[in-house]
Amino acid sequence: MPLVRIDVSDRTSPDTLASISEVIYDAMRSTANVPEHDKFQIIQRHPADELIYPEAGYLGVTYTPGIVFIQVTWNEGRTTEVKKAFYEAVAQGIHERTEVRREDVFINLVETKRENWSFGNGQMQYA
Amino acid sequence: MPLVRIDVSDRTSPDTLASISEVIYDAMRSTANVPEHDKFQIIQRHPADELIYPEAGYLGVTYTPGIVFIQVTWNEGRTTEVKKAFYEAVAQGIHERTEVRREDVFINLVETKRENWSFGNGQMQYA
Amino acid sequence: MPLVRIDVSDRTSPDTLASISEVIYDAMRSTANVPEHDKFQIIQRHPADELIYPEAGYLGVTYTPGIVFIQVTWNEGRTTEVKKAFYEAVAQGIHERTEVRREDVFINLVETKRENWSFGNGQMQYA
Repeated sequence: MPLVRIDVSDRTSPDTLASISEVIYDAMRSTANVPEHDKFQIIQRHPADELIYPEAGYLGVTYTPGIVFIQVTWNEGRTTEVKKAFYEAVAQGIHERTEVRREDVFINLVETKRENWSFGNGQMQYA
Repeated sequence: MPLVRIDVSDRTSPDTLASISEVIYDAMRSTANVPEHDKFQIIQRHPADELIYPEAGYLGVTYTPGIVFIQVTWNEGRTTEVKKAFYEAVAQGIHERTEVRREDVFINLVETKRENWSFGNGQMQYA
Repeated sequence: MPLVRIDVSDRTSPDTLASISEVIYDAMRSTANVPEHDKFQIIQRHPADELIYPEAGYLGVTYTPGIVFIQVTWNEGRTTEVKKAFYEAVAQGIHERTEVRREDVFINLVETKRENWSFGNGQMQYA
């Protein structure tokens, strides 16, 4: 059920993109109880002038043109502890498997209801 | 008021795109009480490696590179029955008017408040 | 904490894009109590057939291919008055600094919770 939007630099290699995609799915599986095969992601590559971040950094974190924006839409109800574990698993996994800095992993969650999904066929599978 | 994001393969023909756009608007009009001319959509074409779906399928639904991701932001308050009718109308309409499979129509709804829209001119038209 | 998606025509000049980006950030600072340096934006350029608006207009507002879609995800809790001031500041600022018409500034807000953000490093900075 999560729908993940991943916005990255157009200089990101296909291997790095594939790793980012895998890490997010694995982190959802291991920390947030997401079912197997529930992997739906929309990636978008951007030229440098389309990804805007504060040059001075924010809250002590600094960014580079390699920033990775991850916006996840999923169902409401996950605890703060689960979200913390998810953030850590994503940043750490991306850092371990790619050249992306931990600081460059930006994550935002949008929460919705169980009935707000159709996984194809015109059906409301979670009803 | 709905803002619709439609993410598709870059191999989708202009005719198919236009039909998908029309079908979504028509389904909103016929099932979800959306006003005439309330048609705001952002389409994005993607190369194959930017649209990620489970190769094994999910919940018995299988997908192809022709998957169409539809994410709708609209006002809260619609019933589960309305949402079911909307999903069915979108999948059926797209299937009838294009070569897209019913299984490849993925829909997610995000709900917001009436005051969360400006339709231009710097005004809050729904206040 | 706001994450702003800005979808524009691919005929928009870099100068206009930079001004739109600045105006949105400035309006957040001046009307909505957004902290300094909290500037995270994803811009996307589109060919004309990817930005869909009603040819007949909507609620008395008319649109051109120069329409600018602005979708802001930020924390819940802002008042209707703050949102009104934000809409006005964005439309007016863009009109003053670019060739974009006030009518072509479309804004939608999506609200989320404080714990739904990681600004990098795998941390939940607002917890």
